[in-house]
Amino acid sequence: MSLLDQMTQLAQQAKTASRELARLSTADKNTALLAMADALQANAPALQVANAKDMATGAQMGLSAAMLDRLKLDDQRIAAMAKGLRDVAALPDPVGRTLDDRTRPNGLRLQKIATPIGVVVIIYESRPNVTADAASLCFKTGNATLLRGGKEALNSNTVIAETMVAAGRATLGERFPAHAIQVVPTTDRAAIPALLSLTHYVDLCMPRGGEGLIRAVTECSKVPVIKHYKGVCHIFVHAAADLAMAEAIVMNAKVQRPAVCNAAETLLVDKAVADKFLPAIAAKLWEKNVELRADEATRALLASQLSTPHSQLKPASEADFFTEYNDYILNVRIVDGVTAAITHINHYGSAHSDSIVTRDETAARQFLAEVDSAAVYWNASTRFTDGGEFGMGAEIGISTDKIGARGPMGLDELCTYKWLGFGSGQVRG
Amino acid sequence: MSLLDQMTQLAQQAKTASRELARLSTADKNTALLAMADALQANAPALQVANAKDMATGAQMGLSAAMLDRLKLDDQRIAAMAKGLRDVAALPDPVGRTLDDRTRPNGLRLQKIATPIGVVVIIYESRPNVTADAASLCFKTGNATLLRGGKEALNSNTVIAETMVAAGRATLGERFPAHAIQVVPTTDRAAIPALLSLTHYVDLCMPRGGEGLIRAVTECSKVPVIKHYKGVCHIFVHAAADLAMAEAIVMNAKVQRPAVCNAAETLLVDKAVADKFLPAIAAKLWEKNVELRADEATRALLASQLSTPHSQLKPASEADFFTEYNDYILNVRIVDGVTAAITHINHYGSAHSDSIVTRDETAARQFLAEVDSAAVYWNASTRFTDGGEFGMGAEIGISTDKIGARGPMGLDELCTYKWLGFGSGQVRG
Repeated sequence: MSLLDQMTQLAQQAKTASRELARLSTADKNTALLAMADALQANAPALQVANAKDMATGAQMGLSAAMLDRLKLDDQRIAAMAKGLRDVAALPDPVGRTLDDRTRPNGLRLQKIATPIGVVVIIYESRPNVTADAASLCFKTGNATLLRGGKEALNSNTVIAETMVAAGRATLGERFPAHAIQVVPTTDRAAIPALLSLTHYVDLCMPRGGEGLIRAVTECSKVPVIKHYKGVCHIFVHAAADLAMAEAIVMNAKVQRPAVCNAAETLLVDKAVADKFLPAIAAKLWEKNVELRADEATRALLASQLSTPHSQLKPASEADFFTEYNDYILNVRIVDGVTAAITHINHYGSAHSDSIVTRDETAARQFLAEVDSAAVYWNASTRFTDGGEFGMGAEIGISTDKIGARGPMGLDELCTYKWLGFGSGQVRG
Repeated sequence: MSLLDQMTQLAQQAKTASRELARLSTADKNTALLAMADALQANAPALQVANAKDMATGAQMGLSAAMLDRLKLDDQRIAAMAKGLRDVAALPDPVGRTLDDRTRPNGLRLQKIATPIGVVVIIYESRPNVTADAASLCFKTGNATLLRGGKEALNSNTVIAETMVAAGRATLGERFPAHAIQVVPTTDRAAIPALLSLTHYVDLCMPRGGEGLIRAVTECSKVPVIKHYKGVCHIFVHAAADLAMAEAIVMNAKVQRPAVCNAAETLLVDKAVADKFLPAIAAKLWEKNVELRADEATRALLASQLSTPHSQLKPASEADFFTEYNDYILNVRIVDGVTAAITHINHYGSAHSDSIVTRDETAARQFLAEVDSAAVYWNASTRFTDGGEFGMGAEIGISTDKIGARGPMGLDELCTYKWLGFGSGQVRG
């Protein structure tokens, strides 16, 4: 069978499964999720055998210690996956929610109802827990999943998906579609464009991972893509900022967890408070071993306060301002007022999360209105852009797109809608 | 300048304009729309000079009389365009609507606010009025437009857009962005893939037109596309249908306006009522010169009632059931119950609009739940799938996609959203 035929078969099976999933009751879905959670824990030995194979291949492939650690499935991580499934079972089911309800003058009643999307392809990198997380969120929303993880995790991912499907069938019998959750069974890179050419069967693709992966998927996909793209997030310290608050927010946004997408990569400081704010924040950041890549004005200002050049103070290049470091590095730039800050952010940012610190409501309102990002904050850390922090209960990703969903994506964002028309014989005149 | 450079410049200008459009007040936008309406009428002579050039080129190109008629801009059509703009001015502005408002336990208030999408590319075929319609809907929602009409309408489209922009600037001065509405100034086909590769500037593409155009756009686009794809709509006459109502709905859905996407292309009849329903409806449809392409069972049933073969009764091929005729042709098939009807529709349909006629609520509820289409009706004509009929006031298209928007797209569907976070110094623990 050709690769395209193989992908077509997978996608057709997923489409058929999606029709059956759309019919499952909330109670059935929750029962199945709890059974899957139990099964993952009961099946831990088999998961760990598969994972050991992946770890051995990974070591042979020369994966770094950090990558191997991400790949590893120990008892604690299996328990965490199971807990994740139980949490999803406890969340409200968005399918069937009435989003609009209107009766037209001719008596035709129109209801807009949340429905599953259908078949969702998830493309991700090495962590095998994503398999259970993504599959459970899609299952709860009545979507069939096609999961394509990193090649180094194929054995682990396959056993996780098989365990979940077996538990579903053991609980719901034939009502649980055999192809509700499928792992793409090949590591061939050509499988991705093949799968993403199948517009008749695949409704959505969500790539999660590095910039290269996201770009490659976007380039080849013929089906709609919602991207979880990079987070080049900014903190703008305005002239009227409470500087103690600004310091706390900058430190939190940069160093509390630098490796995540909602961490700050660039600090913009209003020139009116640069003298007062920058030396203090630089000292604090240097204490935490943060490298500063700064514009000329910032470097001059800081150098004037230092007896010797600081090894963690470097010039920022044009490219740096576009870069998501995910590391202990922060760009710094002095800007002249809120409009300049907004212009910088809309040019260099990634439309993810940005924050202004100020006591001036006019400046804040302008920033909130004009920064074209998924989440825009006034006096809060960018680190809050997260499904859990937003009260969504769970998150399948953070969309940096504007079509389909924007910002954190929870269960609601895994639904589409349809219009139901209730008539009594209406025809159009 | 290369074509790509030229398209990049257009798209950059549009992006800059979109930032300015997002700042316009509702009053400013409405004032500009009314001025544009007046200007289109005042500028009718210039529009007609440009249009005469297009008509002459079109005639040389060998366009059919019907195509030339679509292209023509007479006084009545210019007045209709102007009225369209005034109607859009009168509609509520969806930008800034609060879609969600929640305060988290840490005191962080999160508001989900409707915002413009940004830069929207509209690709369409010959009717020049689409230029004014699409541009006005996008303008009202704060989006910058890049309009690519049929090559035969380039002069007309250019003058329409220029007239609108000039009126906007005359009214609002510098506040009205010079590049809010731009017509792609070349008929080179390569302009489309070039424009749709500019993911940094273009936020959405909406192609409107024939199947070939939509497919070509979807194949080449790197930016999100919302498709107004074909309408293969069904009427299913269930065993428990009120047959007089079914007859009225079938006739309306097929012959009231066969050329539109929400007209019916296939009639499915429950075998329990086929004997009673089919001969009568066939006679009615033949009266209106509708050709029936029928399955074997339907042909046998109808033939048994006819003394001589009817010239308008033909066998339906497999391909016919996938076809949008936009003409006086109707596929007919006898099916065994509601599940068989749903299976047929989900396989052959285009996920646009489908209707069941029945008095049986259980059958109706199953049909409404399981038919995976943008609009699903119970006892009403499929012809109601339309922004005006849905009470949206205007329509830029009917999405057959599931991501971004589904079904009729009015002003609300030309918006995305962002999250605003109002804090008092919150940081993440």
